[in-house]
This record gives sequence, C-alpha cells and structure tokens, in this order.
Amino acid sequence: MRLVNGVLAESLSLNDRAIQFGDGVFRTMKVVDGRIEFWSQQYAKLVSDCARIGIVAPSEALLLADIALLMPQNHSIKIIITRGESARGYVAAADLQSNRIVQLAALPAYSPELYTEGAVLRLCRTRASWQPALAGIKHLNRLENVIARREWSDPSIFDGVMLDRDGFVIEGVMSNLFALIDGAWCTPQLDESGVAGVYRSMLLKIVVLDDIPIKERQVSLSDVYSATQVFVCNSLAGCVPVRQFEQQHWAIDANLIHIVQQQLSVFK
Amino acid sequence: MRLVNGVLAESLSLNDRAIQFGDGVFRTMKVVDGRIEFWSQQYAKLVSDCARIGIVAPSEALLLADIALLMPQNHSIKIIITRGESARGYVAAADLQSNRIVQLAALPAYSPELYTEGAVLRLCRTRASWQPALAGIKHLNRLENVIARREWSDPSIFDGVMLDRDGFVIEGVMSNLFALIDGAWCTPQLDESGVAGVYRSMLLKIVVLDDIPIKERQVSLSDVYSATQVFVCNSLAGCVPVRQFEQQHWAIDANLIHIVQQQLSVFK
Repeated sequence: MRLVNGVLAESLSLNDRAIQFGDGVFRTMKVVDGRIEFWSQQYAKLVSDCARIGIVAPSEALLLADIALLMPQNHSIKIIITRGESARGYVAAADLQSNRIVQLAALPAYSPELYTEGAVLRLCRTRASWQPALAGIKHLNRLENVIARREWSDPSIFDGVMLDRDGFVIEGVMSNLFALIDGAWCTPQLDESGVAGVYRSMLLKIVVLDDIPIKERQVSLSDVYSATQVFVCNSLAGCVPVRQFEQQHWAIDANLIHIVQQQLSVFK
Repeated sequence: MRLVNGVLAESLSLNDRAIQFGDGVFRTMKVVDGRIEFWSQQYAKLVSDCARIGIVAPSEALLLADIALLMPQNHSIKIIITRGESARGYVAAADLQSNRIVQLAALPAYSPELYTEGAVLRLCRTRASWQPALAGIKHLNRLENVIARREWSDPSIFDGVMLDRDGFVIEGVMSNLFALIDGAWCTPQLDESGVAGVYRSMLLKIVVLDDIPIKERQVSLSDVYSATQVFVCNSLAGCVPVRQFEQQHWAIDANLIHIVQQQLSVFK
C-alpha cells in the first residue's frame, strides 16, 4: 500500500524529478507492533538530507499522518521525498513543492541464525563513488549499489563490502560496517563516499559500547581482516554480527546484539 | 505528450526502479522537420549504456514506432529506459522486463546570438564524482548535475564546468567540452567521471576537424584557460562556441559551427 502526498496511489507523475534525475532522498524504517523504531532519529536525518540538497522537507505531522493511514503493525515503511515536478532540464525553482511517497511493505525475512551464527560478507569489485557533495546522504542515486548487488546471487551472502577509489572500506551495499580494531569499534568516515545510516549515527552518538569506544575513522581492508570482531547494521536488520568476510572468519559474541539493542534503547 | 511502453501515459508505476534507485539510462535528441538527428548514433549509445549496467534494451523498431506515434516535427525527444519494476531492495532479476518512456517536448529556445557571439561558462564548486563503473553512461543518477546547476541563476550563463576530485576538467553540467590546446581539439577523458555524449563521440570519430586533430586526453583547468578556442556541445544545442569562462575571454571563430555541422553530416 502506498500514498503519494497522502493519497492512495500506485504511480507517480512522469514530471517527477525522481524519475528524471533520481532527485530525492529516502528513508527505510522498521515498525514493530505498530511502533516506528527510532522515529525522531529517522525524521531528523530526512530533514538533514533534504536540507543538504535543497529539497523542501515535509512536516513531521504530515508524514506521521501518512504512516497512520497505512496502519503498519510489523512492517517496513519507506519514505521517498522528491524535489517535485518540473518539465525539462536540471533547473528547478528553489521553492518547488516536494512530493512525498510513503510505502508499506513486509519486513525482510531474516532467519534467527543470521543473528546467532553471523553473516557472510563478500568484497565487491564495484567501488563507492567519490562525491563529497552527496556523501552520507541517503539519496535516490543508488545505481552503484544496484551494480554492486549484481555481483553475487548466492543467498548465503548477506552483503557486499564496497571500497572507495583509494581502497579504503566505506560500507556494505545495504549496511554500514563496524570493526573492532585496536580496542575501539571503528566505522568508516563517510565524508566523501557512502551512506551514513541512522543506525550507524546512533551508535556513534552513544560513544561507548560496553566500555569499548566507538569512533569514525579511515578503515583499510586489512584493518577489517585483522579486526577482533565485525558487525554490519541497518534499520531493518539491526545489528548483524559477521562470521566471515572473504577468507577471514570470526567467532560470534552472543552478547553483542543484546548490548547494542540495550544501549540504543535510549533513542526509542 | 508521453508514452510508457508504447501507451499514452502521464505517470509511472511506483515499483519502477527509476523512482527507487535512478536505475535506468536516458537519451535526449533533436528532431528537425520530422527527422531525428543522428538516430543511429543515439540508438547505439542507448544499447551500449544499457549493456554496461545490465538493462534489457528495447528494439530499435519499438522505439521508432513510439517516436512515430508522437509525430515530432521540431521538438526534443527524451527516451528513458528503466531496469523495470521490482518490489523492494537492490536485487533485480537478470531478465527483468525494462520499461521505456518516450517524451515529446519543445526545443529549448536558444537565441541566434548564442552561436554568433558565444556562450559564457562558469566554474562549478560541485565536482564530478569518481565512479569508473558508471562513467560515460547517460544514466538517471543525475543528482550531481542538479546540485551543480543550483549554483547559479543568472540566465546569461550557458553552462557550468565541473572538475573531478583531482581538479581536472570533466564536462559542462549539460554539455561536453572541447578546447583547442597545442594545435589539437582536446576533450576530457571520461573513463572515471562524466557523461560521454553522442555529439562528443561523433566529433572523436571524425578524428580531424578542418585539419586540426581531435582527441581525448586529460585536460587541466589551466589548459582550458590558456586554450586558443573552446566550445561545448550537446545533442539539443549542437556546437556552441565559448566567448568567456570565468575571467578568460575568447574571440569567436564564425566558421567553427559551420565546419562542425558539415563534418558531422556524415552521421545524418
């Protein structure tokens, strides 16, 4: 079920700049027992992403009314905000009325073993683009993720790791990555590439995870291979421990997910 | 007037991956007196762009039938090919049926003086992204062009020049660039950034323009500032001589456009 600007719809105007240029941003969030997880963080990120590229963000009240109309229980909600509609060419009026799309979908069916036994990651050949003007933003220009995801079809692989031009680790195709390196949980800096997810941002805000500092830094591929532990995260899957990345294997710390969930509960 | 898969339409399914990810390619072409300029070059580029990212390209016959239905006389035609429709997530079936959108629009109203007096260019702060997997392709992830185009509103500026991470010249926001440097017409290499337009490709194919060799190479900003002549080009505007780029000025060679048009007539 989908709403466009609050009205049930199955299609979008061909004048919408999302179709012409991928000119918009999006959010994916998890609804559990009718409650949106981390809503205020999600909405703040939506507003911040819109501001960075000059899109007029809808009010929180409008979006919450849309979501209420869809009556989610245990679902994913995807919100797309596009710059709006224009006839032709890159130019758009500064005050163009944005379009908002709110979509209800089933939650992805992750097996319980994913969390107890851990995920398998592969290394992608497709690199993350260098683009500081757009880095960190969850925008609709996701072709590089599509291309990277086409590199494998083995369903036992949870995600692929993308490097930047210089070979530094950026992220998973659909997740952010944390690696326990030299006594700190480290996640790659995303000021020139990649998407800074809400789950990652919350972890950075809590600063310390069970006495281990959490920080952003440049992370090389060998840093990850030699890490003590690795996990990936996104808003639908939550924190997913990694048991294997290419030829490297790790034992799973059964407590990790519990600790992460407990510490992030301050944001709920 | 617009067609989606050959049928008059004003909207596109919300499942289309162009909306979700910008997952598609496009072409813009000029129709003069009912005749599509450089059609075979345009179609070949569409097929090649689709192949690079694994999209099933529609047949030439289907597209020509669509265009015929729209009865263009002196118009622009924009073709968008999207990977097709899927419910959620980056994964798409390898044989997904692509969607084709064919749109008729008025030609942009360029003044005759643009060609006799020349265009004014500015330098963009927004850089062209580094992404070899997508470089050269006219794909739907055009947010960086949108952001770069937002840098100016002065209608006397024809286009903005975008540099790459290392400061080399890549292209105009909506054009390719040629500069006469050391006795050769040089256009930036686009193997890591930028869009390789059909007009640019045809110029590279003719190899020599009025006894001056045409070639692709790395072009620095100072190469352009110190060039003897500069022009930009795209399929709607054709060849547009440049009279000013930031503080640098050039006299316009009145013969240039005539020579370019004459030499490109082999492709018509």
